[in-house]
Amino acid sequence: MLDYSALRTVAAVIQTGSFEKAAGLLNVTPSAVSQRVKLIEERLGIVLIVRGSPCTATETGEWLCRHLENVGMLEEELLKQLPTLAAPDEARQRVTLHIATNADSLATWFLTAVANFTKQSHHLVNVAIDDEDHTAEWLQRGRVLAAVTSLEKPIQGCRHLSLGALRYRATASPDFMARHFPDGVTADALVSAPSLLFNQKDRLQARWIRQIIGRELAGPVHWLPSTQSFVDASLAGMGWGMNPELLVGEHLKAGRLVELRTQTPLDIPLYWQMNRLAADRLADLTREVVQTARLLLRHEGR
Amino acid sequence: MLDYSALRTVAAVIQTGSFEKAAGLLNVTPSAVSQRVKLIEERLGIVLIVRGSPCTATETGEWLCRHLENVGMLEEELLKQLPTLAAPDEARQRVTLHIATNADSLATWFLTAVANFTKQSHHLVNVAIDDEDHTAEWLQRGRVLAAVTSLEKPIQGCRHLSLGALRYRATASPDFMARHFPDGVTADALVSAPSLLFNQKDRLQARWIRQIIGRELAGPVHWLPSTQSFVDASLAGMGWGMNPELLVGEHLKAGRLVELRTQTPLDIPLYWQMNRLAADRLADLTREVVQTARLLLRHEGR
Repeated sequence: MLDYSALRTVAAVIQTGSFEKAAGLLNVTPSAVSQRVKLIEERLGIVLIVRGSPCTATETGEWLCRHLENVGMLEEELLKQLPTLAAPDEARQRVTLHIATNADSLATWFLTAVANFTKQSHHLVNVAIDDEDHTAEWLQRGRVLAAVTSLEKPIQGCRHLSLGALRYRATASPDFMARHFPDGVTADALVSAPSLLFNQKDRLQARWIRQIIGRELAGPVHWLPSTQSFVDASLAGMGWGMNPELLVGEHLKAGRLVELRTQTPLDIPLYWQMNRLAADRLADLTREVVQTARLLLRHEGR
Repeated sequence: MLDYSALRTVAAVIQTGSFEKAAGLLNVTPSAVSQRVKLIEERLGIVLIVRGSPCTATETGEWLCRHLENVGMLEEELLKQLPTLAAPDEARQRVTLHIATNADSLATWFLTAVANFTKQSHHLVNVAIDDEDHTAEWLQRGRVLAAVTSLEKPIQGCRHLSLGALRYRATASPDFMARHFPDGVTADALVSAPSLLFNQKDRLQARWIRQIIGRELAGPVHWLPSTQSFVDASLAGMGWGMNPELLVGEHLKAGRLVELRTQTPLDIPLYWQMNRLAADRLADLTREVVQTARLLLRHEGR
């Protein structure tokens, strides 16, 4: 069996980023931390921590940390069933749930769900951000227990709930429109007007253009990997971008932003997929996620 | 000499994420794109593109793309000196400047500078985000031409300007304070009150705690890699966090957030470092960066 005490030491180094700080966290000396880590690395025959500033996990180290958290969750369940089981020190350990979401969900509705959950729960959360088409990979690879994803197909070994759609509007500032689209959104104008892309995985703009023009077009691009900066850059007239309606609704009403072509939203359906083995333990979080999504995302017939 | 026409094809695949879209961008057939990429990979003896959905750059592929952009910048300079030089097709190519910043700068002042620059310039920008202690690495490794960094020491081969300091406040919601710090910010309260960390590289909180308590402490942590979500999570009472004053000033005035301990800001001095070889070409961007920083960051004696 794995040496869980040594694993906790490894996890502490990775969480705090240094052997000294891990020692402080665990109330032992830095040399004790160093010895424990060295010992388990030797026993497993593999490096778990990249020594640096900060210290980071190797891929195996990361897997073992995830595993440790899953064991912690099981232990917590067990202690609920066996309240008389004395485990004063262990019970004080708080379990961190690893979940993944797309940045736009985090900025518009998902944080509300997570905040509501954490206020009723003893759990901590670690939120990873990736494109909605790619969070499913985090789940498949076991790096997170649950994810907001655009993947409709249930992932093997996962439960799957439909959340509704996040609505986007292709938006720009009025002066940007006047400068770059004086004759409306034509194919010619689209290939020369600068647009905003989140990163290389971002396909929202390509989908919207296909919906409007009927084919793909590539124009000049400013790359900005931040939801809020996307809105700020649109307001500043730097480019046009696909912005979540929940963030730009007020700007559209006030005329600070306009739609490139009126009433041409793009709806991205989102799903909550969670590891089947963890689904019961995630019930409270799932309830908050579904409730918040019901309030803030778009649903058929609404 | 490198085959620049083939490199442009490689760069187009990486930018668009697929051979088909690169073909559309370059007005050639997908099989022509595929042949060109294969040919240059064979000639160089190394894979440049990871075929996938999307296609991404290998490390060498990324280096060659950066190099191509630098060559593009030089070419642009040359054409300014030689306006009679006919280069209709090439001149239409817009050069992308790769720059790095910390997320909090992007959310508070840096985007304004970049937006002002892009509105007067033909350049496009690609903004990479990393912790302010780590953007210098992007510059050192040649992945960006300039960076906002907390590194005071000039990087070898770089020019270096002081920008002023980004001021942070340790903040939480009033109900969070009442629940977790009823007796003020004591060491005992800090080790049990959940806090917010951006990611493992985030050392702001540790610095603030050292400033207040005189030593390092590690408590329970929610991980949230987004500047705006940090503010939202603080408002929702999920944890306490180090938030930029520029983002929480209004919330503090209105009482929606309070400082953990009054008047205990943390100032992080920031620097603009740029590749010496590119410094002249970055003069317009640098001017905007310095001007915006002068307005929005903290300066000695102010």
